[in-house]
Parts: sequence; structure tokens; C-alpha cells
Amino acid sequence: MGQSNIIIAVPRWLRAVEAAQAGTFPSVEARVALAVELAQRNIDQGTGGPFGAAVFDLTTHTLVAAGVNLVTSAACSIAHAEMIALARAQQRLKTWDLSAVDRFELATSCAPCAMCLGAMPWSGVCALACGARDEDARAIGFDEGAKPADWAGELEKRGITVTQDILRERAAAVLRAYAAAGGKIY
Amino acid sequence: MGQSNIIIAVPRWLRAVEAAQAGTFPSVEARVALAVELAQRNIDQGTGGPFGAAVFDLTTHTLVAAGVNLVTSAACSIAHAEMIALARAQQRLKTWDLSAVDRFELATSCAPCAMCLGAMPWSGVCALACGARDEDARAIGFDEGAKPADWAGELEKRGITVTQDILRERAAAVLRAYAAAGGKIY
Repeated sequence: MGQSNIIIAVPRWLRAVEAAQAGTFPSVEARVALAVELAQRNIDQGTGGPFGAAVFDLTTHTLVAAGVNLVTSAACSIAHAEMIALARAQQRLKTWDLSAVDRFELATSCAPCAMCLGAMPWSGVCALACGARDEDARAIGFDEGAKPADWAGELEKRGITVTQDILRERAAAVLRAYAAAGGKIY
Repeated sequence: MGQSNIIIAVPRWLRAVEAAQAGTFPSVEARVALAVELAQRNIDQGTGGPFGAAVFDLTTHTLVAAGVNLVTSAACSIAHAEMIALARAQQRLKTWDLSAVDRFELATSCAPCAMCLGAMPWSGVCALACGARDEDARAIGFDEGAKPADWAGELEKRGITVTQDILRERAAAVLRAYAAAGGKIY
């Protein structure tokens, strides 16, 4: 039946960006700024959709793992930036439950779609910080799916703090630039 | 930073079960029965949680790819049975959008959690068939997450047919047996 294991190859440029992050990210703005930068670089490099994300250790304020949308390059619709960042962080730390190890935040360039939202409680992160809003993604044609009306409240109920609108304008501008340049909307 | 690509290794026994499925699956009961059998085998083999899923080609009624829950063995919280089956089907067919190729169904041993539900519209499947209900999973302690009250209706709105309660009692019995045997609930 051909291909059997699931392999999602991470672009070389993403590893280089990760390796270059020697400093710390003490503010939520700095953390979301990296996610937004990753979104922009993913467009520039042509490796996927205009979305970036990263998992940070909130005790050391360091980067654990970065992710970008790799749906088209990996031939895999689940390869959203958030899923890539979460899976890489977990596999690096060798645990499927980040809450068992420490306290981690997922920073994203845009509020998560229904799938990535559903992935949060399973992942064990204790915080989510987002740049652009759902409506900024919808404005360029991405369907975020059927999210509960008070999705942030649903995460809070499960112990995950949600911070929104961090650098929203900068994050939304990346989305608009992608669409204006004729980027694939799916 | 260590591990970089995402690799989810599929157990040898799952490939053997796939390879043995030479026949066709003309009925939805036959398709969900395979998903339920995979859930049971995943328990017996100790490779993950009590969930199975499979993608079928509805034109030929053949199996495209099977999946089981590999969260613990892959150290990856997104490795739910449905995600494994979808990702493997897409990578086999070399497309992130199954709707572009043909007409595919995802059959699952249990109704999808919030994450897997959110993954459906992105995947391009046109049908979802489920065995056990959310409440059967909740009854043994799994939190299905914040799903919209009418989640089936939300999928139907996006062009995905939903069929529930296929072999529900058999599927729920697998969940209960897992819990009774002291299986890990997360």
C-alpha cells in the first residue's frame, strides 16, 4: 500500500530560524511576534499557508519548538502551524502531555481553527496567545470551522489561559498580503 | 534542538491488518466494523488508546488507510485514530485534499473529539460514519472537548454526510472493556 509511517518534514529554513533564537522571550508580544515572523517567512519561502506558531517554556521564556503551515508541502491537511509546533514540542520532550513536564504556552499568528482549538486541551499547554482574529482569516477566505461561540471561555474552563489581539494589526497585515499576492486559499 | 521532523511510526500489526483486507466493504456496517476491530486490536497490542478509524474509497468500497490511537507510543497528543487515518490516506494519495481525488468516507469506532471533528472539513472526506457516541467515551472518562451542540449538522453544512450509531453497542463495549482492564485515560 506504499507509504506507511506519517512523516512531516520540517523545512530547513525553519530549523535555521529556530537555531538562531538564542535569546529569551519574556513578553507575550515577543512570543507572538516570532509566530507572526514565521508566518511571513513561510509565505516568502513558499512552504505553505500564511500561519506560524511556536511553543514556549514560560519558566525559562525560551523557544521549545516552532511550526508553520505545511499542508501543501506535506500533502497533509492536519499540518497546521499549531499542530506542527505542538507535535514537535512533544516529540522533543518525549511526552504527549506537556502539562506533565512544565508550563508551556502556544503562541500563534492567528486564532486557532476548530481543529487546532480542539487540539489544545489534549496537548497540555497552559496558555494560548494569538495575533490575528478568526475574522481576519475569514476575510481572506479561510474557513475556521465550527468553533464554539465562546471558544476562549471553553479553553479557560479546561485550565488554558487565552490572550488575544497581540500585535493583531501586524498579524492581519501578513494575511492580507498573502491574499493580495494570490496565495492559495483552501 | 534534537528531533526536528515529525515522525509517527505505524505499528507493524496495523500494516499487517491493512494488507490482509483484500475484500471490499460495501456496507457502512462493514466499514465501521473494521474501525471497531482496530480499536480492540490497539488495546490487545498495547499500542495506544481504544480508538480505531479508517478511510474508505466509496466508489470501489476498498480500504485506503487505517488508523489507531498512537498518542502514547508516538509521544504526540494529536495522534488520534482519525488523524492517523486521514494523514496516511492523504500522504498515500499525495494530496492534502481528498475531495480533489474522489469520494472518501472516514469510519470511526467512536464519534470524533473536538480536534478530529475540526479536522474533517479540511481533509476533503465527504462522509463520516461513527460507532460509539460521545457519551460512551465520556462514560469511561475521556473528555471529547467543546464540540458544537449540533456538530453533525455543522459537518452536513460543509458537505459531509454523517451516519451515527453504527454497531454502537459493539463499539461501546470495546471502550468499557478498556476501562475495566485499567487502560490509561487521558
